This record gives sequence, C-alpha cells and structure tokens, in this order.
Amino acid sequence: METSEHAADAVRIRIDVSYDGTDFSGWADQPGRRTVQGTLEAALATVLRVESARLTVAGRTDAGVHARGQVCHLDVDRSRLAAVGGDLAWLARRLNGKLSTDVRVRAVRSAPAGFDARFSAVWRRYAYRLCDAPAAADPLHRRHVLTWPRRLDEKAMNAAGLRLVGEHDFAAFCRRRDGATTVRALRELWWSRDGDLLTARVVADAFCHHMVRSLVGALMAVGEGRRAVDWPAHVLGAGVRDPRVTVIPPSGLTLEEVGYPVDAELAARAVQARKRRSVPEPATGRPDG
Amino acid sequence: METSEHAADAVRIRIDVSYDGTDFSGWADQPGRRTVQGTLEAALATVLRVESARLTVAGRTDAGVHARGQVCHLDVDRSRLAAVGGDLAWLARRLNGKLSTDVRVRAVRSAPAGFDARFSAVWRRYAYRLCDAPAAADPLHRRHVLTWPRRLDEKAMNAAGLRLVGEHDFAAFCRRRDGATTVRALRELWWSRDGDLLTARVVADAFCHHMVRSLVGALMAVGEGRRAVDWPAHVLGAGVRDPRVTVIPPSGLTLEEVGYPVDAELAARAVQARKRRSVPEPATGRPDG
Repeated sequence: METSEHAADAVRIRIDVSYDGTDFSGWADQPGRRTVQGTLEAALATVLRVESARLTVAGRTDAGVHARGQVCHLDVDRSRLAAVGGDLAWLARRLNGKLSTDVRVRAVRSAPAGFDARFSAVWRRYAYRLCDAPAAADPLHRRHVLTWPRRLDEKAMNAAGLRLVGEHDFAAFCRRRDGATTVRALRELWWSRDGDLLTARVVADAFCHHMVRSLVGALMAVGEGRRAVDWPAHVLGAGVRDPRVTVIPPSGLTLEEVGYPVDAELAARAVQARKRRSVPEPATGRPDG
Repeated sequence: METSEHAADAVRIRIDVSYDGTDFSGWADQPGRRTVQGTLEAALATVLRVESARLTVAGRTDAGVHARGQVCHLDVDRSRLAAVGGDLAWLARRLNGKLSTDVRVRAVRSAPAGFDARFSAVWRRYAYRLCDAPAAADPLHRRHVLTWPRRLDEKAMNAAGLRLVGEHDFAAFCRRRDGATTVRALRELWWSRDGDLLTARVVADAFCHHMVRSLVGALMAVGEGRRAVDWPAHVLGAGVRDPRVTVIPPSGLTLEEVGYPVDAELAARAVQARKRRSVPEPATGRPDG
C-alpha cells in the first residue's frame, strides 16, 4: 500500500502547479540548472523551514515544456506543518510570494489516503499548439505556440493520428530507457484548427520520454504532404526508434491536465501502475513528457 | 485631401502589426529607447534601403501596452519600391526576418486612395484582461493579463460602465494635452468573465492618453465595492482629471483592432477627424492609448 511508504507522523500534501517552461531546464532537478522541481523544492524548504523538501510529480516535463495542470506531492512532518500554522491556503500564498511569476502554485491541499501524484494518475492530457501562417503568429503567445513556416493539412493529420490510438508499444516514438516498458494506452490524438492556430489534444495513461513531441512530429510530416497518411502507423508497427521521426521543439507543448480516479481507487491504481511501469529512477530524474 | 499630402511619385502602404509591448517603451519613437516605431522604422529603412522611413500609426500605445491589430502607414518612393522588387508580400517576409519575435508584421498592402492609418480610422477596440484569483493566474499569459489580488464584481462594473457610454468630454479620465479636445464617442465598455479571467472590451472613435486605463481603473474601484456604481459617471460629469481615479498598469491592455470605413469614405473621414482632433504632434509623439 502506498500509504505505508511514508511515516505515520507525515502528512502527504497535493500541490497543483502551472509554469511557463521557457526559462526552465525542465521539471527534474539538475545540479546548476534552473528547474521547476528545484525552484519549488527550495521555496517549500524556506516556507516550511525544513532542510530539504522532495517532490514526486505526475509529468516530468522536458526543458522548455509548459504546464497548466501539473500535479505533485510532498510528505511533510506533521509537527513541521503544525509549527507553520497548518493552514494549506496560507502555504500556497506564501509559496507564490516566494516564487517568480513564471511558476504558480494553483492549490495546496491534503492528499486523500493512497494518493501518489505519479502512480495514482490514470491519464495525462497534453496540448501541442502551433501557428502555421508565420505572419499571423501572435507575439503574445509566442512562448507557448510554435510558429511553423508551412501550411499543415489537419484532416490528413487526424486520419493518420486515428491509426495510432489504442494500446501499443510506442518504442518507435520514444527515447529508450533500459528496463522500462514503452507500452502505453493512447486515448486521444486529435488536431483542431482555429484560424491559423492548430492544437493537438493528446491523452494517454502515461507518456514515454519524447513521445508527444515525436507523435506530433510524425503527424506534421503527413500534414505537410511529405509522408503518406499510413506512414506513422507503419513506423509504430516497426517497434524501433525511427530516425526519420522528428522530435518537434518543446515550446508548443503544455501539460494541461492530469486525471486521477475516485479516492477509493487511488491506492489500488498506484500499486498497478508502479508494478507495470516502474524502473529505478535515475539520479537526474529524466523527463517523460 | 489626404492624397495631396504625399508626392505623386510616392506609394502609400498599409502595414498591420502585432506586438508584445512588455519589452518596448511604447509605440512612439524616443531617443535611446527601444520602441515599436523605432524598431519597425529601422527594419523598413534596411529592407527598403532608404535613409529613413517615417510611420503614421492608428494607436500610439503607451509603454507596456500590447497590440494585435495595430495599423500604420508609410509613404515610399515608387522607384525605391520598384528597386526592391515591388512585391509587398516579400517585403512583409523580409521585415519579419529582420524583426525580433515580439513584433510581427501581419500584412503589407497597397493603401487605397485617401487612406491615413491615424485619421481615416473610425474606431479603435482595446481589451483589458485581468485574473482576479491570483493562484489561478496562468503563467503562460502573465505578460498580457494582469493579476489582481481581490475578486471583482463584473455586474457592478458593467452597470457603472453603461453610464459612461456615449459622446462625452472624457477630460476626467485623460492626461491633459493643451489645445486638444477630450471629447470622444465611447461606443462600448463591457466586462465578460470566463472563470477567473475578466476581459473589458472598450471601443471608441479614438482615445485620449491614459483613457482606457483610467476608465478600467475607475470601474475596478466599483468592482471591489470601494466606490458606488454611479461614482465613475459623477467623475465624468465633473469634467476635470480626478486624482482618485487610478491609471491601471499597462500590462493587461491590448489594442485589438482598428476600424476603417469603406474605401470611398476614407479621405472624407480623414479630413473630418483631422479637423476635429488634430493638434501639433510633439516631437516625441506622445501616446494616446
């Protein structure tokens, strides 16, 4: 049981955060780099007056990737929390006071029993946004919408994307990590056009490293007419990383939302996901977005 | 007639631009400062290979104010334009290649007879955006959406705003400029809420300096319950600049669109607007947004 993993005198808190990833070297802590995890953990340590605070996150986003609905958790000593007042809304305000405006704490709340930000999650939803008419690119959105020089055919991209939806081994679209499964359940991969703004909605139980950006890159080759509509499905079927698939830049990618089951199923889900996907996490905590 | 004001061998071109005003000291050229006008004029001079290029603009936005639908015009020597190919789409691409990504040329086209970016315009539409739940502030929109620490009542703000709509002397909401009329026709002033995002839509024939930000500031005092619903109308009626009206920060303000009449009415409109509003423009070209 997940709940047995932290001491009885610790309280698990759920922290919802959003960030502009432009000026961060991704989520995962790296020595000498400005990361979202490092920034948040430093702010938490200061506000909670503890030596260090260690966060567990739902989606370890890569350098330059943004988030609106990122979720993480922290185990805090009950006495420590009481010493600073025990008021979680106050804690959120204090954190936002410490943090720069490119990262915001949206909410801090007491996690339900069995909750694990990473392993209890049942789905992650990403959006990839791009403008395919360069002169129409909105300067106000340039940090999270990619400008693409050629017009894309979203109907062709959706036809190609539908052939990838389902539970498959996505090794062809992932950066390899030894011992980790690359089987994922891709629920949705759909492009919508609003004038010159194209948005891909990508939902899966979880994503391997570079998976969203590789899927988007493969579909864009179809959208440009450089590849046939069934090409991405052929790449998928081959089951090995294909160098012809471009990993598209991170700037258009945003983790929008993480889904969790009802409270009663949190612990069971964590056990199941941990068994299925878990590999020893490297010291640098490699991203998976 | 407007058309008589530029030499017969000159071509007037209309340039539509958008910009993130955060890192600009406003539209108007100022020595030693990074301005939108200065940046665009330098790019135009380089691309057209002329000594200098002088733009006339629809809305001289203040430092920190953004634009999606800014319009300006430039008179170019016909032979100069021919020498660089005479292709206006090419000119737009070349300009975007020279400019940094916080300013974009959306379109360059040949202006119809009688067109004047400033004096032919019949209306300007601005949006003021703010988030009144600080923890919900979206880091991806932080450069053009103001974060406000207290909840605002948009119904009260709309009730107050409706009393300001119409043709009035807006001296109470303007920074004074000697000799210039402050009579303006305010067509629309309306707040919409989308969750924690509040957007004011503000449309008038033209705006005096600081007018949008003063109107928004006065309504926000009503929205916070610090002032009565009829207070902004009383301020307006007094007809003098009221120090109790706060000029709200520029970061939430965006010039969204400029309206022009049908081509046949362009010149007549310019004559009429020039007669009514024109004052000798100071060397620094003071903003009016």
